[in-house]
Amino acid sequence: MNYTKNDGRGNVEGFFLVASCAVKLTKKSQPYLYMVLADRTGEISAVFWDYDEDVHGIFEPNTVVKVRGSVSSYNGADQLRIERIRRTSAADNIVIEELVPSVELNGEDMYAAIMRIVDGFEDDDYRVICRAILEKERDQLLYWPAAFKLHHAVRGGLLYHTLSVVRLCESVCAIYPFIKRDLLVAGAILHDVGKVYEFEVGEVGIANEYSVKGNLLGHLYMGASEIETVAREKGVSSEKSVLLQHMLISHHGDPEFGAAVRPQFIEAEVLSQLDRLDATVNEMGTAISEVAAGEFTGRQWALDNRKLYNHGLTDTDPKAKLL
Amino acid sequence: MNYTKNDGRGNVEGFFLVASCAVKLTKKSQPYLYMVLADRTGEISAVFWDYDEDVHGIFEPNTVVKVRGSVSSYNGADQLRIERIRRTSAADNIVIEELVPSVELNGEDMYAAIMRIVDGFEDDDYRVICRAILEKERDQLLYWPAAFKLHHAVRGGLLYHTLSVVRLCESVCAIYPFIKRDLLVAGAILHDVGKVYEFEVGEVGIANEYSVKGNLLGHLYMGASEIETVAREKGVSSEKSVLLQHMLISHHGDPEFGAAVRPQFIEAEVLSQLDRLDATVNEMGTAISEVAAGEFTGRQWALDNRKLYNHGLTDTDPKAKLL
Amino acid sequence: MNYTKNDGRGNVEGFFLVASCAVKLTKKSQPYLYMVLADRTGEISAVFWDYDEDVHGIFEPNTVVKVRGSVSSYNGADQLRIERIRRTSAADNIVIEELVPSVELNGEDMYAAIMRIVDGFEDDDYRVICRAILEKERDQLLYWPAAFKLHHAVRGGLLYHTLSVVRLCESVCAIYPFIKRDLLVAGAILHDVGKVYEFEVGEVGIANEYSVKGNLLGHLYMGASEIETVAREKGVSSEKSVLLQHMLISHHGDPEFGAAVRPQFIEAEVLSQLDRLDATVNEMGTAISEVAAGEFTGRQWALDNRKLYNHGLTDTDPKAKLL
Amino acid sequence: MNYTKNDGRGNVEGFFLVASCAVKLTKKSQPYLYMVLADRTGEISAVFWDYDEDVHGIFEPNTVVKVRGSVSSYNGADQLRIERIRRTSAADNIVIEELVPSVELNGEDMYAAIMRIVDGFEDDDYRVICRAILEKERDQLLYWPAAFKLHHAVRGGLLYHTLSVVRLCESVCAIYPFIKRDLLVAGAILHDVGKVYEFEVGEVGIANEYSVKGNLLGHLYMGASEIETVAREKGVSSEKSVLLQHMLISHHGDPEFGAAVRPQFIEAEVLSQLDRLDATVNEMGTAISEVAAGEFTGRQWALDNRKLYNHGLTDTDPKAKLL
Amino acid sequence: MNYTKNDGRGNVEGFFLVASCAVKLTKKSQPYLYMVLADRTGEISAVFWDYDEDVHGIFEPNTVVKVRGSVSSYNGADQLRIERIRRTSAADNIVIEELVPSVELNGEDMYAAIMRIVDGFEDDDYRVICRAILEKERDQLLYWPAAFKLHHAVRGGLLYHTLSVVRLCESVCAIYPFIKRDLLVAGAILHDVGKVYEFEVGEVGIANEYSVKGNLLGHLYMGASEIETVAREKGVSSEKSVLLQHMLISHHGDPEFGAAVRPQFIEAEVLSQLDRLDATVNEMGTAISEVAAGEFTGRQWALDNRKLYNHGLTDTDPKAKLL
Amino acid sequence: MNYTKNDGRGNVEGFFLVASCAVKLTKKSQPYLYMVLADRTGEISAVFWDYDEDVHGIFEPNTVVKVRGSVSSYNGADQLRIERIRRTSAADNIVIEELVPSVELNGEDMYAAIMRIVDGFEDDDYRVICRAILEKERDQLLYWPAAFKLHHAVRGGLLYHTLSVVRLCESVCAIYPFIKRDLLVAGAILHDVGKVYEFEVGEVGIANEYSVKGNLLGHLYMGASEIETVAREKGVSSEKSVLLQHMLISHHGDPEFGAAVRPQFIEAEVLSQLDRLDATVNEMGTAISEVAAGEFTGRQWALDNRKLYNHGLTDTDPKAKLL
Repeated sequence: MNYTKNDGRGNVEGFFLVASCAVKLTKKSQPYLYMVLADRTGEISAVFWDYDEDVHGIFEPNTVVKVRGSVSSYNGADQLRIERIRRTSAADNIVIEELVPSVELNGEDMYAAIMRIVDGFEDDDYRVICRAILEKERDQLLYWPAAFKLHHAVRGGLLYHTLSVVRLCESVCAIYPFIKRDLLVAGAILHDVGKVYEFEVGEVGIANEYSVKGNLLGHLYMGASEIETVAREKGVSSEKSVLLQHMLISHHGDPEFGAAVRPQFIEAEVLSQLDRLDATVNEMGTAISEVAAGEFTGRQWALDNRKLYNHGLTDTDPKAKLL
Repeated sequence: MNYTKNDGRGNVEGFFLVASCAVKLTKKSQPYLYMVLADRTGEISAVFWDYDEDVHGIFEPNTVVKVRGSVSSYNGADQLRIERIRRTSAADNIVIEELVPSVELNGEDMYAAIMRIVDGFEDDDYRVICRAILEKERDQLLYWPAAFKLHHAVRGGLLYHTLSVVRLCESVCAIYPFIKRDLLVAGAILHDVGKVYEFEVGEVGIANEYSVKGNLLGHLYMGASEIETVAREKGVSSEKSVLLQHMLISHHGDPEFGAAVRPQFIEAEVLSQLDRLDATVNEMGTAISEVAAGEFTGRQWALDNRKLYNHGLTDTDPKAKLL
Repeated sequence: MNYTKNDGRGNVEGFFLVASCAVKLTKKSQPYLYMVLADRTGEISAVFWDYDEDVHGIFEPNTVVKVRGSVSSYNGADQLRIERIRRTSAADNIVIEELVPSVELNGEDMYAAIMRIVDGFEDDDYRVICRAILEKERDQLLYWPAAFKLHHAVRGGLLYHTLSVVRLCESVCAIYPFIKRDLLVAGAILHDVGKVYEFEVGEVGIANEYSVKGNLLGHLYMGASEIETVAREKGVSSEKSVLLQHMLISHHGDPEFGAAVRPQFIEAEVLSQLDRLDATVNEMGTAISEVAAGEFTGRQWALDNRKLYNHGLTDTDPKAKLL
Repeated sequence: MNYTKNDGRGNVEGFFLVASCAVKLTKKSQPYLYMVLADRTGEISAVFWDYDEDVHGIFEPNTVVKVRGSVSSYNGADQLRIERIRRTSAADNIVIEELVPSVELNGEDMYAAIMRIVDGFEDDDYRVICRAILEKERDQLLYWPAAFKLHHAVRGGLLYHTLSVVRLCESVCAIYPFIKRDLLVAGAILHDVGKVYEFEVGEVGIANEYSVKGNLLGHLYMGASEIETVAREKGVSSEKSVLLQHMLISHHGDPEFGAAVRPQFIEAEVLSQLDRLDATVNEMGTAISEVAAGEFTGRQWALDNRKLYNHGLTDTDPKAKLL
Repeated sequence: MNYTKNDGRGNVEGFFLVASCAVKLTKKSQPYLYMVLADRTGEISAVFWDYDEDVHGIFEPNTVVKVRGSVSSYNGADQLRIERIRRTSAADNIVIEELVPSVELNGEDMYAAIMRIVDGFEDDDYRVICRAILEKERDQLLYWPAAFKLHHAVRGGLLYHTLSVVRLCESVCAIYPFIKRDLLVAGAILHDVGKVYEFEVGEVGIANEYSVKGNLLGHLYMGASEIETVAREKGVSSEKSVLLQHMLISHHGDPEFGAAVRPQFIEAEVLSQLDRLDATVNEMGTAISEVAAGEFTGRQWALDNRKLYNHGLTDTDPKAKLL
Repeated sequence: MNYTKNDGRGNVEGFFLVASCAVKLTKKSQPYLYMVLADRTGEISAVFWDYDEDVHGIFEPNTVVKVRGSVSSYNGADQLRIERIRRTSAADNIVIEELVPSVELNGEDMYAAIMRIVDGFEDDDYRVICRAILEKERDQLLYWPAAFKLHHAVRGGLLYHTLSVVRLCESVCAIYPFIKRDLLVAGAILHDVGKVYEFEVGEVGIANEYSVKGNLLGHLYMGASEIETVAREKGVSSEKSVLLQHMLISHHGDPEFGAAVRPQFIEAEVLSQLDRLDATVNEMGTAISEVAAGEFTGRQWALDNRKLYNHGLTDTDPKAKLL
């Protein structure tokens, strides 16, 4: 966090994300607020001694507050002493991307790029299904993350990952002309759309927890079931709808990773492999960018417990070229 | 087959199931029919020398024919020489259960028993969902098998297995009062209903092959998705519908066996275990009933490659007490 | 613990279970006792300043003491300052069930219920074996727990779990008449009896640790070996004895869980599955009862790392109906 | 085979591949030759009655012969009665691609395309290593197959698969600019070069068997060890050589598939995944192209035992666009 | 078989092992005997035309007969035409080792060598247990095979394998002086003794099938349980008996291979590994001795599906130096 | 550590190994050194208040320092207050074996013993390869450890483990005369030589971390590749070199443990099993020696999570008899 890099004396004023907030008692049994505040670069602990429960209430995690105060050192770490704190509103014109880890592309731009691709489909049915679902879930898609942890767990990560997989699919179609392009790309666009129902995500675009149905049904099933519903509404043939549904419930490839069935035609297999490729590249890039050139990371449990090597030959920041 | 037990000389007249049928050529290049005919007790090969393609055409597998002829020995096995053969119609009043392996209970009786249980539900929503789906799929349910091979792969096997699992669930509820009975029993009734969409089944009640969507989506997904659709139509709350859908997609227990998620509440877990119990008991009983007391079966690949022992202490025919 | 819920000022007098006990030194190098005391509702830390090693010695874990003292707050938690402490004897008429987590049924009642079932066996041999072993191990069985952690790890848990599995077996026999009832129920009664040799259990009925032979041989082997010995003594035929021994060494089902062989006849398989059913239901019920309706538990490592859902439709306390 | 489609009477004259050849005895103990002859479309059995061992010797499998004879029917299948047979030489100008299954591209063209890519490397060291190895193994590379069975098991398959993976790598670099392009592409070019030492391949470009060292060391190890040798000879830094060697020994990804270590940097991981992608697409395409639209293949053991679906939406012949 | 190497014309007279025997009918419906006869070098098919069921009855597999007849060629293989055939008795002084595959050492010699080792034990208790069991099972041990298939599946194989493992244990004790020698060697001597109860073995020393209790309990459990019984009879301390029992039930090392528990002290672990070493060396040696130098065997399913290489540097016959 | 056993008052003077060293600040912001010092018996924390960064600098881990100071108790543990500290040099004649955990044999003696074995080889080629590599890596081999953790992770552990495996191989050759002794022993001598390139090891003989190529290539590959290079230099036949290389890359037996291929001839298999035997015995012995007789260790994750038993029948210190 920026404030952790100053000399520990200056005053602070600005917007912060509430990471956590609790009421505690001083030794004299006076209540005060203990908070952790964050922006996209890090976190700082904060105390608010002049707390009045009736006036201030409690601040919910993953909301934005405006704070004035000063930073000092406490137990070897910086701590922010809050002098004033208030909730924020639309009038504050907050740029959320500065407060939470976010992808470097704008949600509207990514959404528009995907819509252009949909509009270019030769196949009317896949265009109709994709448009219907994208339009229905537009508000969430613009900022939704792709995960809690692991790959693309940042504001806007869901569309970013989706567009990455679409770009990979387009490239592969150019090399393998026997692939049905519209089917593959439609599957890529919709493959993770069920995540919109799977997480509870605050306005700032960070996943708080799984929803009840996210836990009980999972995004593969929910996305596929949504296609079933939309296809019936729009009168799309069962044959085409079944192919797309299959791509969704099989895209994790291996039952061990939640695929109810394994991919049974080439487009389903290619989608599954390219989804995994983008996720792996993103996770590896993120992990490697945290160690110096010539060093290995610690063991990555989500990557078969591998230690990863930063060979130092390239910039390690894993930004894709998507637009 | 009954005709294999006679002295090999008598005449034969009656109804048979066509197991297979092919046109072959004699050494003099005359076409004749080579068939395998079956009833529920076994098979016999058959030849029809007076075959006229224009008159007789080809006989489809899993249809019923009426045959007159005589049995003689050929290459050490009985063979039926067909004198007359014709297709059958409703007017023949065929009792299909005599021709194909069938459960010992009547489809209508099992269906009625299940409907009585549904009508007794305290919970209106689960009653509504179960009734709607049972009524919609009634025609298939009355004779549908539960599998191709393995457990209950006989005419009527699906309802028989369903009712067995329901009876097990009712028993267990009596011992564990903290189980939500209507939820468990509703899940038991619907758990395999997706098999109605999963197989291609001829009129005689034997599965010919998987349907395209059976292969691509599987009965767990299709059954759950049907609940989603019906619950929306009937205005059932999302909470209740999600619980039932979860029970369907998790009832194979382990992702290795096609469960998209593992059971996450007690009723889902109990359903999964009792489904497995009934399937295992049926498969083991069937395998053991084919060896003599004191003997072991060959290795059963579907049962972890076990050899099974007929201890001879009881009748081995695995008939359940369901009505 | 009850005393943790008072206002932190009152005096305390009563019986407690010693959870742990250690001699420590004050800053002035005076020895004092630091203990953790428990009853079935919880724990409290305690200090005894007037400790005299020659007079008081050390108090063994899982024994019962009588204590007088007062509770005050220390470092944000209640702490009991002991004024007087002494060991207890039979004359104290302690109700151990109030001090340690216990099943809700009386050991004598469960034992009598099982004996009645044994007396009702048609098969003389299984009756003889069961009676002999039950009578020999009676003293332990009346209060033995079923485990350290996981399912039924409470005073009386072994008989409670045994009786639960017996009830499940009886129910299943009513549905599958081809099962040999006496064989199945005898197996159920004896399936975990080897646990009497597997744990070191204090008088209060909580397992302290595995015995040496518990670690080296396991309860499956030891229970089966006991049947071998008893069957020889009582002149039971090798055939019947071998069937029972097989049920014991196979009842964990999968070699991964300690089964030397897999179940090879129906009664062995059914016992194995119903043992697992009761264990799973108990573990899931216990875990779920610790979260509020609408919430998920944390991941349960003993249940394939699942998060479990409290759907709130029933009372979550997993009490079975056994008598 | 073309000759199996004629009317069974015409004369035959042309070049064939020897699939197998054996000397047999007639009933009168006269020796004759029994052969199976092949071209890229299929096989036919053949007999040569006028066989004289001293004159004709035996014909080695996977060599080409010129044959004159006539086809007739024997036991329901076509058989070629050979009248004249002789070995062939360079003077015959045989087009081997007509006789054995071959990729649709010319070996020289693929080799030249890869060399052009190598010449375009910015990195001198990777250019030096790739050129040295490609030049050294040129003669084999021009026609070597990529496997015995499974993917690309045809004449020219090794370069075809190599070029496919290179094309995929180039595409992915365009999307992920943080990948070190020359390193990835060099790894792609060399990843399977060890197959040149792994198989015994006849002049016609079909693998006869594994070489001894192919069995004992495997192509991953041999390819990497070759890089070590060449890098020492050419004075390439150990750091760069180690990265390439790592990519070779890790490119099967999972130790289960022969990878001594798992990929530990992004280029190694991407190579491993794209190698698998091309292999899977080729295997799936080949399997699917053998069934009609709307049909499923049998279970494919090399593809997790999946049945694959021909959805009929595209041409199924898996020809890539590589030049 | 020796008779297959003659010129096909000479007369034959001698003892044979009956591999199989069946009554068949000639085209004129006359019964004749069709047999397969064997000695330790191979098999030959045989026919006996002058068969009279009342006179000759049927000949049981794995019994020895005396035969006179002549060998001729039939369908490209040698066949023995039997002229006279009779059962044999003790008076025939048959050397069974010439008729069935046997180890090259004499059973009595191996038994005596093991007894000498037992007599040399410092530990009285292990000596007592080993003597008691070896004496009790002496008759079987002298000729019992170690398996059906896989390692040491020959007459005398059980003692041969036992003595091999004992020799390995003695060697290892010399290198690791911290191993308790008597315990390790006693475990080695008894580790497979339960195989005496596990197989049905004919007088010739070849296993016909598993016994019922062999299937249901397995030799690990039965051997350990026998130690329990003997130790109680002889008054050996429970501590020492438990260690030996543990070594037996754990000696397959991994539960996947039938070990109820894993080895928990060094002697148990060393026994388990050396048992596997001897088995593997025997299986590999047997497989390799069947291919020529420079060749690979087919895939060996019992050895992780490996192909094995005959490097030709040594004699491949896997005879150990044991006496 | 010896100093932890004194009464906490005496003065200390001597050589120590630096386990860790950090500069910290007192409450008055004065820098001081906080170190952990070690000898082969244990560790002690130490503080050096009179620290002057310019004078003393920082002390690298795994170097040796000379220290004078006094031990007192701090927070319940001994702490060394350093009065004087300096680096050491050759002139100090330090006996490193007293400072770090070391094998009980001298590196020169073990090296000489192995060289004698090599000189005794009948096979010239294996003698040449072994000599060349042993001489080249002599300096490292004399003190190199065999691992970071797990078996033989002590100074001199690599040669100690190597010689142990050689001794086991020699013993086994005496029992199985069909093993090619020189091949097996040469493989044993070289099997772990790649560890010399795999770790970064300080002068004191303790591994600090994996080298970059240790991580990326592993010792199996690097050792085998070294044989390839040496064999080419010395003109050894490819056949013999390939056998040795195979033994190195296969000696972990199972791909799961890094073996690129499985052992395919007897010598490779025996080496793999005996390598595992020595490693297991060493790990088990080390773990068991840390608990009292009659006790179990905690779960050992590197040994399949087993608890191990100290049966108390022998000395538990796992010293092998190697010279």
